Amino acid sequence: MESRSLKVAVLGCGVVGTEVVRRLHGAAAELGRRIGAPVELAGVAVRDLDRARGTGVDPALFTDDAFELVKRADVDIVVELVGGLEPARSLAMEAMAHGASVVSANKALIAAHGPELHAAAAERGVDLHYEAAVAGAVPLLRALRESLAGDDIERIVGIVNGTTNFILDRMSSTGAEFAEALREATALGYAEAEPSADVEGHDAVAKAVIMTALAFHTRISPAEVHREGIAAVTAADITQAQALGYEVKLLAVCERDRRDGAVAVRVHPAWVPRGHPLASVHGADNAILVESTGAGRLLLQGAGAGGAPTASAVLGDLVAAGRRRALGSTAAPAPRQLTGQVRRIGEVLTRCRLSLDALAVADVVAVLDRHEVPVETVLRAGEELCVLTGPVPQAWLTAAVDSLRALDPARRAPRCTRLLD
Amino acid sequence: MESRSLKVAVLGCGVVGTEVVRRLHGAAAELGRRIGAPVELAGVAVRDLDRARGTGVDPALFTDDAFELVKRADVDIVVELVGGLEPARSLAMEAMAHGASVVSANKALIAAHGPELHAAAAERGVDLHYEAAVAGAVPLLRALRESLAGDDIERIVGIVNGTTNFILDRMSSTGAEFAEALREATALGYAEAEPSADVEGHDAVAKAVIMTALAFHTRISPAEVHREGIAAVTAADITQAQALGYEVKLLAVCERDRRDGAVAVRVHPAWVPRGHPLASVHGADNAILVESTGAGRLLLQGAGAGGAPTASAVLGDLVAAGRRRALGSTAAPAPRQLTGQVRRIGEVLTRCRLSLDALAVADVVAVLDRHEVPVETVLRAGEELCVLTGPVPQAWLTAAVDSLRALDPARRAPRCTRLLD
Repeated sequence: MESRSLKVAVLGCGVVGTEVVRRLHGAAAELGRRIGAPVELAGVAVRDLDRARGTGVDPALFTDDAFELVKRADVDIVVELVGGLEPARSLAMEAMAHGASVVSANKALIAAHGPELHAAAAERGVDLHYEAAVAGAVPLLRALRESLAGDDIERIVGIVNGTTNFILDRMSSTGAEFAEALREATALGYAEAEPSADVEGHDAVAKAVIMTALAFHTRISPAEVHREGIAAVTAADITQAQALGYEVKLLAVCERDRRDGAVAVRVHPAWVPRGHPLASVHGADNAILVESTGAGRLLLQGAGAGGAPTASAVLGDLVAAGRRRALGSTAAPAPRQLTGQVRRIGEVLTRCRLSLDALAVADVVAVLDRHEVPVETVLRAGEELCVLTGPVPQAWLTAAVDSLRALDPARRAPRCTRLLD
Repeated sequence: MESRSLKVAVLGCGVVGTEVVRRLHGAAAELGRRIGAPVELAGVAVRDLDRARGTGVDPALFTDDAFELVKRADVDIVVELVGGLEPARSLAMEAMAHGASVVSANKALIAAHGPELHAAAAERGVDLHYEAAVAGAVPLLRALRESLAGDDIERIVGIVNGTTNFILDRMSSTGAEFAEALREATALGYAEAEPSADVEGHDAVAKAVIMTALAFHTRISPAEVHREGIAAVTAADITQAQALGYEVKLLAVCERDRRDGAVAVRVHPAWVPRGHPLASVHGADNAILVESTGAGRLLLQGAGAGGAPTASAVLGDLVAAGRRRALGSTAAPAPRQLTGQVRRIGEVLTRCRLSLDALAVADVVAVLDRHEVPVETVLRAGEELCVLTGPVPQAWLTAAVDSLRALDPARRAPRCTRLLD
């Protein structure tokens, strides 16, 4: 067994795939030493065989038939970098059905089909790893799956989308409006030509679903996650936040209610107090704060995207899966998947900032008081009235906002942004 | 196999042991669900049976014969919280010889006997985990062992001793001298009555040895690590550092020379620039910056000591080892241990701050120039002359300091502190 090579198939050869293939090619001897068995590239599946790849790899290893590649009996590990749901799901299932372990960086796939994929891995005794799927090179998932497996996680608050953090950070540092910062992010390669998956928060939702499964052993579907993107954040919002000592960040928040164990998951822009570790996460970095009963507050921060950082996490998974193969060991235990209770956003308590076009303070406070929204601070900032609330159920706040709007329907609708405690 | 209970023996019932036992007792059902098999406390070995433990556990489970406990055929996992080298080493070896997996929080043991213990674990097909040994609850070791296993780590810079960070942080925020801050740390339980293991840097050295083994696959003995403690750091040093934009931290630095792969490991106080993530690590927190070719810079931060955080890491290891037992799976692959080349401190390049009792600038610069020490900044601060150097081999700097001293042997010896790049 020691001398047999581990054969690795790579599906997809974009930015991350190119890095993985290059390293499998150029550092095969070193990776083999770390695994404990020689490692070899079995093939690379691409959509278009004619595209130059620049990986230095024998062109004969490239194929446009991914299904044929994953079904090969000699393939030990399949690295899925195709993205999206199909054919990625079918390819991963076929690979495992044929006895290969699977490494994936595909958050949408794991969020949508994680339980099915884990069940297939357990049935076949193969590994399924996806460390790169949530925070790129930041080693979050192993921490949730193993290091914190004996602790009780209470909350995870994360900046898990580099594109939106870059945009908000640029708006914050240059005063640019959203559209201008997005253009800059696109020009620099931080945003895709069709940026809605990032900007509208879908990407962060998929990541929140994966974190919730591992941290709270609770299955939540992407549709159950409350989602707000950053397209409505204005330069004026950020200026006001800064004046009051906050930075605006897109957060994924996964939390469990201590009393009944119900889980609430949401993705939205939030005001983060300047002293908070997440307030100083700049550029396209990711950072995740994990709060648990025993460990307290843990912060994990680093590059959440990009070819080399994502490839680093993929290759770590590959070495881990390879070591087990080389040892002839059975696979890593799958995380437990239970269906816990999910709390709707309307019941979730958050602190908020309300921004209203100038109205009489007394009128506003009376409405909020009637809806039992605790008022902590009221400030007049130019034409706007800014109210910071205490913790309040989202549903009460929504009702209060409706009533405030009714005070003077001619004015701009009140705007509501959550605050991070 | 599914219904058989996993039996856990705990050795040592101090601050951490009490937390572990309490949780094994009070949260056995939940831990069992996460493991996939019922978990049960087999026994707790203590030195003094008469001491009240406050764990709520049946007193009949306590024993003062640790060797008898680890030899029991029904014990699946031994949690070693005895500390020190002996009998901890013999107990761990006996436990593995009798087929039990071992979880340890003992940095001195792993630093001194890691290879021997890993060899025994591999031979017996049992797990050996020690996540709590380096940075308490901060999930560093799994990240080094698995998540970064396909990457090339270049440098690890860590604040890995909470006691000294607390002392330096107090000196920084209150202006206290070392002795006063140490007294406060002792009173608050952050420092032990005999504080030399922390204050002299021995604890950080053991941790650096463990990080080096996992990150660089290189075995280095504690005696090969350059070590300076914090007892000589003065309030005036800290004031000067702050005036120039630095904080003083005790760092463990493990780095590999890209050119020849040689590893250099050192523990010493260093000036850390204020914008650097390690400069804002307060209190007894730990924080580790890992720099690698693919992932870039990763920061992991959290509670590095204390009962509950350390128990969190121990219990994570316990669940991981338990899951594999419950699955009937063989053990986790041991990290590869190779003997890489070790660089002596004299050859290591660092930037330094020299502090000298007032001498003529021209004389000082002439001496430094003769020893080829690059001078970047010269400042007069009251009675002192402060020189910041560029990167220079430690041996050249030592020679330069000797020559400077010879300029006027009646003055206080020049003082040299490293700067973190």
